[in-house]
Amino acid sequence: MQIATKHEKFTEPLYLESGRILEPYELVYETYGELNHDKSNVIVICHALTGSHHAAGRYEGERKAGWWDDIIGDGKAVDTEKYFVICVNVIGSCFGSTGPLSPKNPSAEPYRLKFPVITISDMVRAQIKLFDRLGIRRAEAVIGGSMGGMQALCFAIEHPRFAARHIILASTYATQPWAIAFNKVAREAIIQDPSFQNGNYDSKTIKKEGFSGLSIGRMGGHISYLSPSSMYDKFGRIYDEKDGLYDLFGKFQVEKYLDYNSQNFVTWFDPLSYLYITKAINIFDAMRNYDSLEDSFSRIVSKITLISFKADMLFLPSEMKHIEETMLKIGKADLTYYEEIDSDYGHDAFLVEIPKFEQIIMKALEN
Amino acid sequence: MQIATKHEKFTEPLYLESGRILEPYELVYETYGELNHDKSNVIVICHALTGSHHAAGRYEGERKAGWWDDIIGDGKAVDTEKYFVICVNVIGSCFGSTGPLSPKNPSAEPYRLKFPVITISDMVRAQIKLFDRLGIRRAEAVIGGSMGGMQALCFAIEHPRFAARHIILASTYATQPWAIAFNKVAREAIIQDPSFQNGNYDSKTIKKEGFSGLSIGRMGGHISYLSPSSMYDKFGRIYDEKDGLYDLFGKFQVEKYLDYNSQNFVTWFDPLSYLYITKAINIFDAMRNYDSLEDSFSRIVSKITLISFKADMLFLPSEMKHIEETMLKIGKADLTYYEEIDSDYGHDAFLVEIPKFEQIIMKALEN
Repeated sequence: MQIATKHEKFTEPLYLESGRILEPYELVYETYGELNHDKSNVIVICHALTGSHHAAGRYEGERKAGWWDDIIGDGKAVDTEKYFVICVNVIGSCFGSTGPLSPKNPSAEPYRLKFPVITISDMVRAQIKLFDRLGIRRAEAVIGGSMGGMQALCFAIEHPRFAARHIILASTYATQPWAIAFNKVAREAIIQDPSFQNGNYDSKTIKKEGFSGLSIGRMGGHISYLSPSSMYDKFGRIYDEKDGLYDLFGKFQVEKYLDYNSQNFVTWFDPLSYLYITKAINIFDAMRNYDSLEDSFSRIVSKITLISFKADMLFLPSEMKHIEETMLKIGKADLTYYEEIDSDYGHDAFLVEIPKFEQIIMKALEN
Repeated sequence: MQIATKHEKFTEPLYLESGRILEPYELVYETYGELNHDKSNVIVICHALTGSHHAAGRYEGERKAGWWDDIIGDGKAVDTEKYFVICVNVIGSCFGSTGPLSPKNPSAEPYRLKFPVITISDMVRAQIKLFDRLGIRRAEAVIGGSMGGMQALCFAIEHPRFAARHIILASTYATQPWAIAFNKVAREAIIQDPSFQNGNYDSKTIKKEGFSGLSIGRMGGHISYLSPSSMYDKFGRIYDEKDGLYDLFGKFQVEKYLDYNSQNFVTWFDPLSYLYITKAINIFDAMRNYDSLEDSFSRIVSKITLISFKADMLFLPSEMKHIEETMLKIGKADLTYYEEIDSDYGHDAFLVEIPKFEQIIMKALEN
């Protein structure tokens, strides 16, 4: 599989939903496979909150491959022998696309809290600009899980003729208060941490010395990504015998897992990006600019494949089902396919239970 | 209904499960109704993590009545015209019974982090000591929800002849990693807050100036006490128009609710008590001192009524069902009654959906 990481700079303004402007801006993206001569073999992959454009493959020295490496590659469900796959880092993120730590033109100083609030639609519009520049007018599919699914749904509604099909996993039509509440814990933990300094923290220092607000927020996130059942299977009630059960700060295995992963998180993710991206997720509502969800979905002309996971505690199967039901209600049954995967894993099933749903993606791409 | 709040001091040691000793110790409790001449009309109510002995009635100037006022009172499901009802504040708590801010004998200085780790069994043993002193050798029932249910189950196993029946709501046989993870977010938020000062915070100052660690922890708690459905019904996607949608710190209604309740929480609950009581909850495992749950439950000789709530996100109906199944397995079907209440409210249903289950409590008490 041919992999490339590329940057693209845009000097023209990106008009944001808020009425503000991002100018200039930059996008970093990865591609897998080869673009055919008429540029008709494109598949767009959209990443989730803490994901990045590094969706597949493994660079030298990397411990782990890209986040969806099991699904993207030669002979895999998203077959790079056939397709040219692109994954773009969203604006607002901290992996190379313009975000709150990017310089605020014309100064060299980072935006920080002066970065504009962005929306899922803005993320998608920025990607469309990139595809325009690359001469890509049409894609075979847009595929995404979680916040990536929000982007895919947004592509389907707001750029209905861009892709022939949209595959949405573990996502929703509008972020519900339950998910906003999980985000709230993280957002407050970040903002209230004295290290946050109203957004003026030093990135190098927090990466080295830790930033408990972001760590605590990530712990809350981890709860929402797993499920009671997957936690039980992973950790049970095992505790550290060394500490003993009667040590106030002694730890159960699940606590050690949360400690390790949340402390580690600070070394690779940025607090301001976390604030801006969770804000975009909170704002997401596919009917916001329309009279109703029916009205919004009436714009859709592509195939919509919906994959939910039984034990998803963040975006419930019922939310995905509601997308299907609304499509059926407006007479788009022929465009719609919904399947709930029997998985106890939780939200992260879209990242780890790939054998349970890759066939659905393959079939959707064949149609 | 006759209400009284009383204190009882114990100069003899309370031997704790950890091997440590609490000496002296004090318990505060409330009683409702009148004790009959042969002391045979007692019902014990056990409170949850942030609950207190103030289970019913309303004192002068109080905005809200006790936490289970809808169920305890003259002519109510726990009828104070018939029963003498006692609710004891657990050791470790911050409402009057000995806890981490009590003076560490012989000094007048509070224990703080020198307070011993306590367990649900310890909480129950302290209550038994009180009942002994009051000449109460037997109760008609022990009733509790959430951590109160853990206490009730513990009464049934470890003091099997004390009560004729045990009614357990929204609880578990052993705290699962899912619940430990929610507690972890709160515990870390408290410990990592610079105001915590290794337990040496000034209580008056934090009550006045706030303590974001405890507030953030409480937010996580609120998520686990509600459900996606109850949050949707309560808050929807309503946001503060004043802030506008594109203000990074603008708030959805669910966020305002979490802010208000979590900031308010600091004015009435103590961070160290939160650490000690969540530790007791984390440790709770009804089979810990036995070979198996079957072995543990084989000690039970009383009626066990189990009430779970369909959308309880903290202690799942399956955990309550497991108690029933284990009782059936060891031939105690005649002692066991299980019912799952059709409620979308979440864990807090045991506090708010009383019309849906009070009949079960009444019937259990009549049997």
